[in-house]
Amino acid sequence: MSPQGVPSTVPDDGLTTRARRGRPLLIVHTGDGKGKSTAAFGLALRGWAQGWPIGVFQFVKSAKWRIGEEKALETLGESGAGGTVTWHRMGAGWSWIQNRVDPAGDPAAAAAEGWAQIRRDLAAQTYRLYVLDEMTYPLRWGWLDLDEVVDTLRTRPGAQHVVITGRAAPTPLLDAADLITEMTKVRHPMDAGQKGQKGIEW
Amino acid sequence: MSPQGVPSTVPDDGLTTRARRGRPLLIVHTGDGKGKSTAAFGLALRGWAQGWPIGVFQFVKSAKWRIGEEKALETLGESGAGGTVTWHRMGAGWSWIQNRVDPAGDPAAAAAEGWAQIRRDLAAQTYRLYVLDEMTYPLRWGWLDLDEVVDTLRTRPGAQHVVITGRAAPTPLLDAADLITEMTKVRHPMDAGQKGQKGIEW
Repeated sequence: MSPQGVPSTVPDDGLTTRARRGRPLLIVHTGDGKGKSTAAFGLALRGWAQGWPIGVFQFVKSAKWRIGEEKALETLGESGAGGTVTWHRMGAGWSWIQNRVDPAGDPAAAAAEGWAQIRRDLAAQTYRLYVLDEMTYPLRWGWLDLDEVVDTLRTRPGAQHVVITGRAAPTPLLDAADLITEMTKVRHPMDAGQKGQKGIEW
Repeated sequence: MSPQGVPSTVPDDGLTTRARRGRPLLIVHTGDGKGKSTAAFGLALRGWAQGWPIGVFQFVKSAKWRIGEEKALETLGESGAGGTVTWHRMGAGWSWIQNRVDPAGDPAAAAAEGWAQIRRDLAAQTYRLYVLDEMTYPLRWGWLDLDEVVDTLRTRPGAQHVVITGRAAPTPLLDAADLITEMTKVRHPMDAGQKGQKGIEW
């Protein structure tokens, strides 16, 4: 129950507690249940409250998805009361390349462009927290080079936290993760014939 | 992957699709993993973006917990760009009774006061979304009457969504829920001797 529980073991890694506490985390939210992305955006709330620059990279194509989270995080970023939020959405073309990638065109190429920008931002330490929303899918589909992605994440500089969401996270990604949570569907209204509804699903 | 997937069955409940889509949901986030509350606050982002009045009732006592989420949701509520957010924190005494409940005193009485207010708000349809954070604990500990809570939730009027978080949700609560997600811990840094860190755990 406590977020500050006593660690079950003390590692022999030569780090001070302070250094260990500030260790940048690679977090994965996976599983077939709800809440993977929702919890990642909840983490973004905490990071924003700490004043962190936050980068969201949304590897999904529907304009409706995440529209509430995007509005909320943009409002927070613009409030000046916390950190900044930069939102990149694949479906509308990645912002830094404007209309170069046709979202109706080659999604594999669009995903690769997204990852290339993330790699540049990680090298430049642009953000303190990266939300790589639904990035397990382009990894699963072979649109991104899994080994290269994992290696880049493992060797990223500084104190950059990364949270990756999506079903069926590949094993090498899980092996590299510091924190993995699996969201399991126990019961869902769609099982009873109900479709998604606004405010809940988007 | 789709939030709007095709329902696997069409219920014979006499409701139109529109009525069924707007059905108020009782949502439970349980399990030993991370993300139960975080995902609930992520849902609050969506509700806020829809312009909903949102009530948060925080059944935990530490002042540090949820401080980031509280700051973020208050900033959103005050922005005027979406819905309103009203935050009630048990640890500081419930706001509507000011200092009548001593948080260092009887936590069972404080929890009961909290639930009594929720019951009044449900009857008055004060909010469109209720985040009842960590409310499984007072239920588990017998501080609240489980049967009465479940009955009140089942018979709540209008279109009020309720999300309840916490480990070990009691079976009668799960039986009443429309949507249950279990968050399972697969790997956590505390296992490797790391304590919680700000921006991630609070």
